[in-house]
Amino acid sequence: MSFHDLHHGDRPLLLPNAWDFASGAALVRAGFPAIGTTSLGVAAAAGKPDAAGDTRAETVALARVLSRLPVPVTVDIEGGFSARAADVADLVAELATFGIAGINLEDGRADGTLAPLDHQTTVIAAVKRAAPQVFLNARTDTFWLGAPDRDETLRRARAFAAAGADGIFVPGIADDADIRAVIDAAGVPLNVLFMPGKTEYERLARLGVHRVSTGSLLFRKALHATVTTALGIAGEGGELPAFSYADVQELVQ
Amino acid sequence: MSFHDLHHGDRPLLLPNAWDFASGAALVRAGFPAIGTTSLGVAAAAGKPDAAGDTRAETVALARVLSRLPVPVTVDIEGGFSARAADVADLVAELATFGIAGINLEDGRADGTLAPLDHQTTVIAAVKRAAPQVFLNARTDTFWLGAPDRDETLRRARAFAAAGADGIFVPGIADDADIRAVIDAAGVPLNVLFMPGKTEYERLARLGVHRVSTGSLLFRKALHATVTTALGIAGEGGELPAFSYADVQELVQ
Repeated sequence: MSFHDLHHGDRPLLLPNAWDFASGAALVRAGFPAIGTTSLGVAAAAGKPDAAGDTRAETVALARVLSRLPVPVTVDIEGGFSARAADVADLVAELATFGIAGINLEDGRADGTLAPLDHQTTVIAAVKRAAPQVFLNARTDTFWLGAPDRDETLRRARAFAAAGADGIFVPGIADDADIRAVIDAAGVPLNVLFMPGKTEYERLARLGVHRVSTGSLLFRKALHATVTTALGIAGEGGELPAFSYADVQELVQ
Repeated sequence: MSFHDLHHGDRPLLLPNAWDFASGAALVRAGFPAIGTTSLGVAAAAGKPDAAGDTRAETVALARVLSRLPVPVTVDIEGGFSARAADVADLVAELATFGIAGINLEDGRADGTLAPLDHQTTVIAAVKRAAPQVFLNARTDTFWLGAPDRDETLRRARAFAAAGADGIFVPGIADDADIRAVIDAAGVPLNVLFMPGKTEYERLARLGVHRVSTGSLLFRKALHATVTTALGIAGEGGELPAFSYADVQELVQ
């Protein structure tokens, strides 16, 4: 089944996000039909902060090695690692040369603001011209940075789809009404971030969500298992708190 | 406390093995006073097999980024990625330039045999001449490849120490009598691999072992947490078996 088709099955595509070859290959062995990447994991593994636009080389290198996997791979390219639409289009065209099936392209910026809508649609259109076969999952950070903004989300979802996006990703969205509104507005598949206790898979399935991804969750769980196992050897540690996104970002300071 | 001194505390140095910056930094945050690396983790993360001598670049890159950590770092260089003693010495000298505190150098070869003893002592001596301040943990695979061989272990431990090794590492050794014999013979600190259910930390402490390292265990636990978490999202998976060394090697085929 093609990566596009995986968004139109009976249940949402559950897309786990890897950060190195081993995590990706282990998830494929477990039966997942497609693999994404997590920019937080890729950046932290390399000792760099997430969402700072400084991991283009690591992202391409990971995409290249993950392309050996026998399933579609979609790559988180943050904001495209450049403010120039042509650079982002070149990056996605490069990824396409070794068979990458999809990308995530976000409008959130390192300073916590959203890229202007007309800039983002220009980038989306340029990417689709350069690599039309690559599934472009257009992420808007309207629920991720600052106060949730449903109206701006709907505006961006419509505009991104009109510019050629194959799907819309709204990390942080959780309420039934918000999710239904985006599905109705976008006209393309909606990707929701799985957040334990907030966005249960079965509820998202009932709402008609098309893709459920794990973001940095698996990476943070892996770190937790690492430290918990190590502390347990000499009987230390007890119940270690979960690693938050901020905890991981602090590790690389 | 220097990395050498950490081998002479009241209890064995518990050395957790990292495979990327994030795992190393998380272990430092948890309080570990020094960090090692795991060649299986480094190789699998890059999509390569372990112990095939093909991860020199990845090993150096990881060492460089881990050297930012505020604790001593010791690097698993497998067999040194070359059959020439001068190449191995150059590698360790390069690691020393960015402050690496120690290395593991093993006599096991990709074909499952042991390097000849005189070759291995030549390499050890060359490394110590090139980087005398780097703690050289000489690993012998006499309990790891093929049938355990206590006599050969004692012979190699004595010869490696005489050639300048600062410590001896015998992965797979577990019995009290074997461990006591190596400690008596070597005259330098003994490193034992932690294996759940086989080499408990408290017993190794009572025996006078100087260092207990985790090998690939943390990496394999991290992979297990990754897959278990992902499968659990849609209620799949149940109790997933642990990842063995062979399971990880299969992922990169």
